[in-house]
Amino acid sequence: MNIKAYIKKVGSRAKEASAKIATATSDQKNIFLVKLAEILINHTDDIIEINKKDVGNAIKKNADDAFIDRLTFNFASIKLMADGLIKVSKLNDLIGQISNKKRMPSGIEVAQMRVPLGVIGMIYESRPNVTIDAAALAIKSGNSIILRGGSESIHTNNYLALLINESLIFANLPEAGVQIIENTDRAAVTEMITLTKFIDVIIPRGGKSLIHKITSEAKIPVIKHLDGNCHIYIDEYADIDQAITITDNAKTQRLGTCNTLESLVVNSKNAASFLPVLKKIFDAKFIEIRGCDRTKECIPGITSATDEDFYEEYLGPIISCKIVDSIEEAIHHINKYSSAHTESIITKNNDSATKFIREIDSSSVMINTSTRFADGFEYGLGAEIGISTDKFHARGPVGLEGLTSLKYIVFGSGQIRT
Amino acid sequence: MNIKAYIKKVGSRAKEASAKIATATSDQKNIFLVKLAEILINHTDDIIEINKKDVGNAIKKNADDAFIDRLTFNFASIKLMADGLIKVSKLNDLIGQISNKKRMPSGIEVAQMRVPLGVIGMIYESRPNVTIDAAALAIKSGNSIILRGGSESIHTNNYLALLINESLIFANLPEAGVQIIENTDRAAVTEMITLTKFIDVIIPRGGKSLIHKITSEAKIPVIKHLDGNCHIYIDEYADIDQAITITDNAKTQRLGTCNTLESLVVNSKNAASFLPVLKKIFDAKFIEIRGCDRTKECIPGITSATDEDFYEEYLGPIISCKIVDSIEEAIHHINKYSSAHTESIITKNNDSATKFIREIDSSSVMINTSTRFADGFEYGLGAEIGISTDKFHARGPVGLEGLTSLKYIVFGSGQIRT
Repeated sequence: MNIKAYIKKVGSRAKEASAKIATATSDQKNIFLVKLAEILINHTDDIIEINKKDVGNAIKKNADDAFIDRLTFNFASIKLMADGLIKVSKLNDLIGQISNKKRMPSGIEVAQMRVPLGVIGMIYESRPNVTIDAAALAIKSGNSIILRGGSESIHTNNYLALLINESLIFANLPEAGVQIIENTDRAAVTEMITLTKFIDVIIPRGGKSLIHKITSEAKIPVIKHLDGNCHIYIDEYADIDQAITITDNAKTQRLGTCNTLESLVVNSKNAASFLPVLKKIFDAKFIEIRGCDRTKECIPGITSATDEDFYEEYLGPIISCKIVDSIEEAIHHINKYSSAHTESIITKNNDSATKFIREIDSSSVMINTSTRFADGFEYGLGAEIGISTDKFHARGPVGLEGLTSLKYIVFGSGQIRT
Repeated sequence: MNIKAYIKKVGSRAKEASAKIATATSDQKNIFLVKLAEILINHTDDIIEINKKDVGNAIKKNADDAFIDRLTFNFASIKLMADGLIKVSKLNDLIGQISNKKRMPSGIEVAQMRVPLGVIGMIYESRPNVTIDAAALAIKSGNSIILRGGSESIHTNNYLALLINESLIFANLPEAGVQIIENTDRAAVTEMITLTKFIDVIIPRGGKSLIHKITSEAKIPVIKHLDGNCHIYIDEYADIDQAITITDNAKTQRLGTCNTLESLVVNSKNAASFLPVLKKIFDAKFIEIRGCDRTKECIPGITSATDEDFYEEYLGPIISCKIVDSIEEAIHHINKYSSAHTESIITKNNDSATKFIREIDSSSVMINTSTRFADGFEYGLGAEIGISTDKFHARGPVGLEGLTSLKYIVFGSGQIRT
């Protein structure tokens, strides 16, 4: 079968299965999740054995350490996945919930019911834990899912597919509810993102070039997780000790995550009290500061920040810095250069905080805390399939609710329109 | 200036204006709406005079009556627009509303704030009342808007643009908050729907071919109003009198609207008591029934319904009819042929009603009432910019809320991530 026909068949099966999963009971969905957790634990040795094949191939191809790290399973990471499944099984089932019920003057009662999106197409790198996490969230939210992981994880994913299928059958759910694309050809991605007839949403996770390719070629709505060029603004009215602690945490707690601080904006009134102290801490941690001309006057010897620096998501030991004279200038700078992921203001002034919250156009806007908190678990969503930098549909960390929609339901007793 | 540069400039101005409109006060937005209502009334004669030019040109080009009707302004229709503006000014301002506030174990407080989408691109036919309605909803919901109406209404739209601008200036809002594309070239549409840098959402209203072109070529999220192939299912447990009244209303109250009934599904147990009565009523109103073989046995002499008939949105005096033996068969038939707009069940049985509501995959699902109620005003939204047949973002009638998004806001007091 050629790729086009193969993907179409997968899509058609997923669509058919989605109707059954949409009306499955909460019990059925939770039985699936708990069974899969049990099976993963019982098959830990086999999973690790098969995973070694993928890891071995990746090493032969000289993949870098971070890549190998994301690809590799061990006892701890399999236990973590199983625990995650149990956690998802304990979350509320949103499907079928009725809200906003009101009686209209015509006599009809109008409400909204939470329903699944239908079929999710997930495209991601060689991180086989995503296979389990995404399958769990899709089924719990009443959707079916088509998973297209990186080709380097194909043996692991194919084996996980068997375990997932076994769990679906155990819960009396259709096997086609979770399907893994067995074809490693890139053309499979192109087919998926244009299969409007059967797929309702595409969720890409991966590098910038993959996301750009998908968003520019997709004919299906995309929930995209783009870069996180996150800012902290040290306001005129900041508590400097707090500013130091939070800036240090936001930049250095983990360097490579999307909610890591990448750019600092400092009010000129605080530059002299803040920047030299921060520089000492960052020097000790080998974090390089690249600054505007005024930053360079304040902490001499640093490199100049170019326009490209201000647009950059470093994901590494570098941070850009800009000195401004007002909160207006700070907001303008951030809205211009930010990727609209997460920004935080450090201030004791209520007006500054309110202005910042209202006027910053990002998916998360914070006061006096670390950008590292932008996360589905820290926000109490109980799960996260990604962090959306779109405004349309889900914005910010996306949990179960982002995988659902609302339909209107109308209760009448014979009313007609006049 | 070529079209590409022109649309880019319009988009850039709209984006800049959107930041100011997003933070405008409710008073400012309402002053704009009330002022525009006043100006429309004061300029009624001028509007009608200029509109005559467009109408005259359209008549010369042999446009049909329905087209001329939609294009033509008169005293009543201008008064209706002005009244609509006053109504929108009285709706709640959603922007800045904070919801779902909760304190997390880390000590941070997480909430969501309602924010505008940013820049709306509206593409529509020669219905100049949409120019006013869409501008009103966009500004009230804190967005800026770019309006691209049909070329046959260009003189009317350009004059309305002057009146809108005058009202924006009066309310101290940026003029670029509402811009009308003065270029009637079709290429302007192509440029708009790919201007991802400046436009956040495209809302097309018009014929099927326009919507298909836009959804297949757009690089920007689209809220689309596709066809309404609406169904009523006469359940085994229907009240036959109610079924007749509702079916008659849903089909004949207005023939050409998207929530008009286009296809009937009848449980075989009720076919003999229901269909002959309905046929008499429809005969008297010159509504043609096209049916499946079993329908033809029940009411002889009618034309056969083909597969194409079941997919068809007639928007005219024809209805298709299918006889089924069970609610399962009805749901399967509807989910297959429907455009997922609006479907209603007529039943006295609670199990049938619940099953239908849960399993029909459409934007509105109704019990014992007419599909004609699927409408933003009848649902209490206070306004309507279209009816979305998408599942992503807004679904069903779209009012002010559909033109907004939620961003996360986080209140901390120095918390860092550990």
